[in-house]
Amino acid sequence: MTPSAPTPAYRRLSVEERRSQLLTSALDLFAHRAPEDVSLDDVAEAAGVSRPLVYRYFPGGKQQLYEAALSSAADELRHCFDEPLEGPLLPRLSRALDRYLTFVDQHAAGFSALLQGGSVVETSRTTAIVDGVRRAAAEHIFRHLEVTEPGPRLRMTVRMWITAVEASSLIWLDEDKQPPAEELRDWLVEQFVAMLSVTARRDPRTDALVQALTEDV
Amino acid sequence: MTPSAPTPAYRRLSVEERRSQLLTSALDLFAHRAPEDVSLDDVAEAAGVSRPLVYRYFPGGKQQLYEAALSSAADELRHCFDEPLEGPLLPRLSRALDRYLTFVDQHAAGFSALLQGGSVVETSRTTAIVDGVRRAAAEHIFRHLEVTEPGPRLRMTVRMWITAVEASSLIWLDEDKQPPAEELRDWLVEQFVAMLSVTARRDPRTDALVQALTEDV
Repeated sequence: MTPSAPTPAYRRLSVEERRSQLLTSALDLFAHRAPEDVSLDDVAEAAGVSRPLVYRYFPGGKQQLYEAALSSAADELRHCFDEPLEGPLLPRLSRALDRYLTFVDQHAAGFSALLQGGSVVETSRTTAIVDGVRRAAAEHIFRHLEVTEPGPRLRMTVRMWITAVEASSLIWLDEDKQPPAEELRDWLVEQFVAMLSVTARRDPRTDALVQALTEDV
Repeated sequence: MTPSAPTPAYRRLSVEERRSQLLTSALDLFAHRAPEDVSLDDVAEAAGVSRPLVYRYFPGGKQQLYEAALSSAADELRHCFDEPLEGPLLPRLSRALDRYLTFVDQHAAGFSALLQGGSVVETSRTTAIVDGVRRAAAEHIFRHLEVTEPGPRLRMTVRMWITAVEASSLIWLDEDKQPPAEELRDWLVEQFVAMLSVTARRDPRTDALVQALTEDV
């Protein structure tokens, strides 16, 4: 039996598998370093392939690779919001926040760089991807609250809370992940109820929601 | 009496006056249009001077002019926070928010473009300028609360509220400045107390602050 010569690993993958492998390597690098500190050579090395191969898949270079990695991270983030429409509402929110904070924890550097702005890879396209995730988060919340046409005051409150969640996760990363994720999660859920309660004083529809939320537990 | 030939207006100003006049014209343009839609020609025309003169003051072109205009807007924004350290606390916050919302109202387009990110003129320098304003806002709040060393939970709450104020002003601009500024202001003050109250459940120092805030009115 003659041992066959080892074929380079990158010949064995399909186009889709290869693309996905490169994105995984890129996401892993972007998770630990700011985008400006990641080169295409780093991505090639991490994936165990040549730099030209990376360029074959992403002819637009690092910017294209970054945007593709970001889209794939955005999809992953959207999955955090998948939560069955049953059972008490606040525990649903807790579970979604748990998944979200796990994501933030795992993608720390890339997440911060992207949301803090001013990054060299930030463009109107990357901003649109991030805004898409924010919109998806708001839509999920309205679906769970069973609100089909949120009024302006409720909409502003929910969008404000989503921004507050983002801001607090950045601060959390900045502060060496203190307080512990569970405390941050509970605090964010309580902030959600508190912010809605302020709006409820001026908006009867939000008031009805807050009643339902707090009776529901 | 022989009427003297009209001298071009731009000869009469000192270097500082000219610089300040160009910045005012630029700020006014950035207030009504996104930075990418403002050219140096527009600035020259608005200031009634030649394009080369604008370049003489801002050899770095539009980016330099934008950053200088932004710094000047940041100074203006910091002035909004100037509030005497006397009288009940929440009315102080109301007055600062009134000035802030007037600023937002007057600088709508530039303010949105900057904070929404992904703008062509956004760099790590512009991000640093904006972060400086956020830090100044937080410091003002702690000074008024007479807190010299805020703990991590209080710090996170205040920073989160500041982000929430930013987010709600962007949404407010997006929604044709509805609700009216006075309602938005009162709502933001109430959100401030509500957010602190959530933190107070876990943090005795914040609890003492909330007591003082609510007894103070």
